[in-house]
Amino acid sequence: MQSGSPVTPAGSLIPTLEGSWYTAPDVFARERQAIFDRDWLCVARAGDIPAPGQFQVVQAGSESVLVVRQRAGGLRAFLNVCRHRGSRLCLEESGQTGRYLRCSYHAWAYELGGRLAAAPNLARMPDIDRDAYGLVPVALREWLGYAWVCLAKEPPSFEDTVVSAVTGRLGTEQAIKSYALDDLALGRRITYEVAANWKLLVENFMECYHCAPIHPELTSVLPEFAGGYAAQYYVGHGAEFAERVSGFTIDGSPGFGRLPGVTDEQDRRYYAITIRPQVFINLVPDHVIFHRMIPHGPDHTTVICDWLFDAAVVASGQDVSRSVELFDRVNLQDFAACERTQPSMSSRAYESGGVLVPSEHHIGDFHTWVRTRVSA
Amino acid sequence: MQSGSPVTPAGSLIPTLEGSWYTAPDVFARERQAIFDRDWLCVARAGDIPAPGQFQVVQAGSESVLVVRQRAGGLRAFLNVCRHRGSRLCLEESGQTGRYLRCSYHAWAYELGGRLAAAPNLARMPDIDRDAYGLVPVALREWLGYAWVCLAKEPPSFEDTVVSAVTGRLGTEQAIKSYALDDLALGRRITYEVAANWKLLVENFMECYHCAPIHPELTSVLPEFAGGYAAQYYVGHGAEFAERVSGFTIDGSPGFGRLPGVTDEQDRRYYAITIRPQVFINLVPDHVIFHRMIPHGPDHTTVICDWLFDAAVVASGQDVSRSVELFDRVNLQDFAACERTQPSMSSRAYESGGVLVPSEHHIGDFHTWVRTRVSA
Amino acid sequence: MQSGSPVTPAGSLIPTLEGSWYTAPDVFARERQAIFDRDWLCVARAGDIPAPGQFQVVQAGSESVLVVRQRAGGLRAFLNVCRHRGSRLCLEESGQTGRYLRCSYHAWAYELGGRLAAAPNLARMPDIDRDAYGLVPVALREWLGYAWVCLAKEPPSFEDTVVSAVTGRLGTEQAIKSYALDDLALGRRITYEVAANWKLLVENFMECYHCAPIHPELTSVLPEFAGGYAAQYYVGHGAEFAERVSGFTIDGSPGFGRLPGVTDEQDRRYYAITIRPQVFINLVPDHVIFHRMIPHGPDHTTVICDWLFDAAVVASGQDVSRSVELFDRVNLQDFAACERTQPSMSSRAYESGGVLVPSEHHIGDFHTWVRTRVSA
Repeated sequence: MQSGSPVTPAGSLIPTLEGSWYTAPDVFARERQAIFDRDWLCVARAGDIPAPGQFQVVQAGSESVLVVRQRAGGLRAFLNVCRHRGSRLCLEESGQTGRYLRCSYHAWAYELGGRLAAAPNLARMPDIDRDAYGLVPVALREWLGYAWVCLAKEPPSFEDTVVSAVTGRLGTEQAIKSYALDDLALGRRITYEVAANWKLLVENFMECYHCAPIHPELTSVLPEFAGGYAAQYYVGHGAEFAERVSGFTIDGSPGFGRLPGVTDEQDRRYYAITIRPQVFINLVPDHVIFHRMIPHGPDHTTVICDWLFDAAVVASGQDVSRSVELFDRVNLQDFAACERTQPSMSSRAYESGGVLVPSEHHIGDFHTWVRTRVSA
Repeated sequence: MQSGSPVTPAGSLIPTLEGSWYTAPDVFARERQAIFDRDWLCVARAGDIPAPGQFQVVQAGSESVLVVRQRAGGLRAFLNVCRHRGSRLCLEESGQTGRYLRCSYHAWAYELGGRLAAAPNLARMPDIDRDAYGLVPVALREWLGYAWVCLAKEPPSFEDTVVSAVTGRLGTEQAIKSYALDDLALGRRITYEVAANWKLLVENFMECYHCAPIHPELTSVLPEFAGGYAAQYYVGHGAEFAERVSGFTIDGSPGFGRLPGVTDEQDRRYYAITIRPQVFINLVPDHVIFHRMIPHGPDHTTVICDWLFDAAVVASGQDVSRSVELFDRVNLQDFAACERTQPSMSSRAYESGGVLVPSEHHIGDFHTWVRTRVSA
Repeated sequence: MQSGSPVTPAGSLIPTLEGSWYTAPDVFARERQAIFDRDWLCVARAGDIPAPGQFQVVQAGSESVLVVRQRAGGLRAFLNVCRHRGSRLCLEESGQTGRYLRCSYHAWAYELGGRLAAAPNLARMPDIDRDAYGLVPVALREWLGYAWVCLAKEPPSFEDTVVSAVTGRLGTEQAIKSYALDDLALGRRITYEVAANWKLLVENFMECYHCAPIHPELTSVLPEFAGGYAAQYYVGHGAEFAERVSGFTIDGSPGFGRLPGVTDEQDRRYYAITIRPQVFINLVPDHVIFHRMIPHGPDHTTVICDWLFDAAVVASGQDVSRSVELFDRVNLQDFAACERTQPSMSSRAYESGGVLVPSEHHIGDFHTWVRTRVSA
């Protein structure tokens, strides 16, 4: 639902990626290596791991990564692999440990900061450097209330990649701060398993040419989306709510009070942001819809979608269903469209790809980005 | 159940294809490309798509193909892929559309003849050639009441491949016309999923050396099949019904009246025809059994079998079960034999293949044909 | 639970195999070819195939192998493939045939010794050499009450590989004869499907560093195992039962009477033997626990475990559950540990492998053996 520059050659069609980009196992392997194993990935909501010793095990690129809350308060991340004989260290998706992370196989134990702390007969093995045999660290940043990790040994600048994707879309860094994502609470989480390539989901999120055909509820709330051509044209532009609509809900009924920092300019507006390669954020005055993707193969992607509200709304137990239902329907409509598209990617008819109409031209930038990253 | 020339070197054994022809994924990929994506394939019964705007979505070689009844009456076929961003166009296996075939993703709409008719904002895109962005056409022929398609850009002669396979077997073109397949009605359809390579099914259909061991019901109706050596030896020869048998039914009880065009010579006779690569036809005086295969992988083949009767028989609601049961049992016996053979194809014992006894020598022609096609 | 030489460089860590050895399909294919298709494999308990004409169909390396009891009493093995068109010959996992092994497809029939005996129309095929078209033989040896087969055309010496693995561990050939495995009866058989590479199972069986963390019941019966460092250090050494323990049972309660040939030295002792590539044997005074593995892929291994008792014990119907439960729990604990380790084998953290502590150093010999075999 996000669109790019308004200056496009009127009326021209430009080519998409060729079909094999969406189906070939070796393309997927190269994308994993060149993109998902090198870029910052959003992997967990920081608020879900509040206490020291609490942890989550997440999939990041090709790795199982352990995100652990430290005694000093911050989060740290490690490859979830014992350095001795390689057993998975933490076996549950999430949990709470004590002083140590202990391997279930031979009882090697690590400090929360990763250093090897103890092992049976360790005293008789004088040549073990407890730092060298500590857990393999993974770079981690907290931002917008989420933990972002990067598997690269020399991670790219977080500011130049993640932060700038948001400011480039909204115009200023202040614009996202208005929503104070750090302070929001989780109202609902829905996980979707989608039988489509991750890039089809990105492309779908980036354009609104499909809005009129498949999103009746959304275009009812945001009438400019019905034009297909219209979306978020200019940097900083948000789609305006329909006059008769009170809130961003399935039936246009009122939602909740405007989040404290949201400005008058941002009120009654919808903003969509894509952070490559795997995050979509949607901002409305009273809540935030936060998607992260986990690609598993050329034709299988998991999407985890969080609906975030003012902490007081969640604490009071108010019913958030009408707010959630609107974008849950949008998600289901979008993912079904992607699943109908995936099978054709191997057809001779799509061997040299399809075409982008003018209102989709900015998807071409995404294609260029993917091509460049994979061939680098 | 079909066999070839009676003139074979008495007593000699000749080699089969090597085992890897039945198991290697790359062999299957080359067969798909060199045979199934280039030859005429029988994909639908024309009578199942009677009305304008009615369609079926079928698998042909590596493609999903759309077969649509035109307003003018004929059938046409297209790759089932929208030219814009590649979504599957028709989502159901069969259905009825109105004036246009409309894509569910961005609402691009095509005439039944394939031309691009409409799309949102199309008027603002002057450089779109509505023929160039029409659906990708697939060659189609109607014959024997079935739709045959060919994915090749330059299809081979239908007469020299499909028609000649029938006349070569029966001796004259008139012989098949006697059964007037165009006019028959569908009495029963059974779909079989077989865990075996498509070539094992062709080979099985081509010989009767296995008839005595595995087809007690069939050899009871057609006693010459019990000899193993006997089958349809000579061009034009049909196997004769046993004296005590009234019809081609599971218990030899009477079937239905002879089809109007069937000659005295064809009465009380069974004829089997193989049309490479995926059709088997069985002719008996009162019905026709029509098999088409869809190979999905080296060890998975779908077989769709139609039992066709005089339209009056089907219209009257008469019970066709005893006729159907005979060849349904034959099918189940054959496909089980193929499934018992498939696993051995990867054994060292079959590395250089097996052997053909004299009554199977004509299978060697099929092997030569496959080798030639794949290496071309 | 078996460990090697006590003379290891004190305190040093030595590297394991790299992670890809446990995950790469091509490595598995080469192991199958270089190890499982060339070495002696234990495939069946001879006592399960007692009568002439009785047979079992077993998986050995990449082949389906038929093991048949001969009229003269011995066992013989063949590839389970008909020489005509390749159908599987015996279709059930086990059964009883009469004079011949008859193929279900075209009725070719073989003597129990493999020679082609009969086929439809065979008399008209004078050039068929009934020995040349006999079943493909597979080398077979009976030892310890089991059938061992070897797919190699020139099998390695059974004595230098299988027998010497046992005598090398126990010190003398007499030591295993004390248990008279040929005479024991099957008290219980449990089959485990393990989602781990076969080498992880071998490594697990070879060391006891994991015993304290994961085997509370076993270390309770064999207290020296709790030390991690201790196991079967010296050639011929067996782990001693705890003083308060009466038998090798889940609760230390008495088992059954000592097997007739077991010596005083062997009484109240546990011995573990690894026979590469796929057999583990555990000896205790009143029973024998015999494991054989069948690897199906890089991350899937079947383990068949037999609990063998004095024939009189089994004949009398005495309850063997407490004996069985002890090692069944050990198996489940070990296989779960292997399954927790398998996923990490593809992690960057295990790209160059893990490390072996001093009490695991002998696993390095196994790694050297695998490397040598696969690269040969």
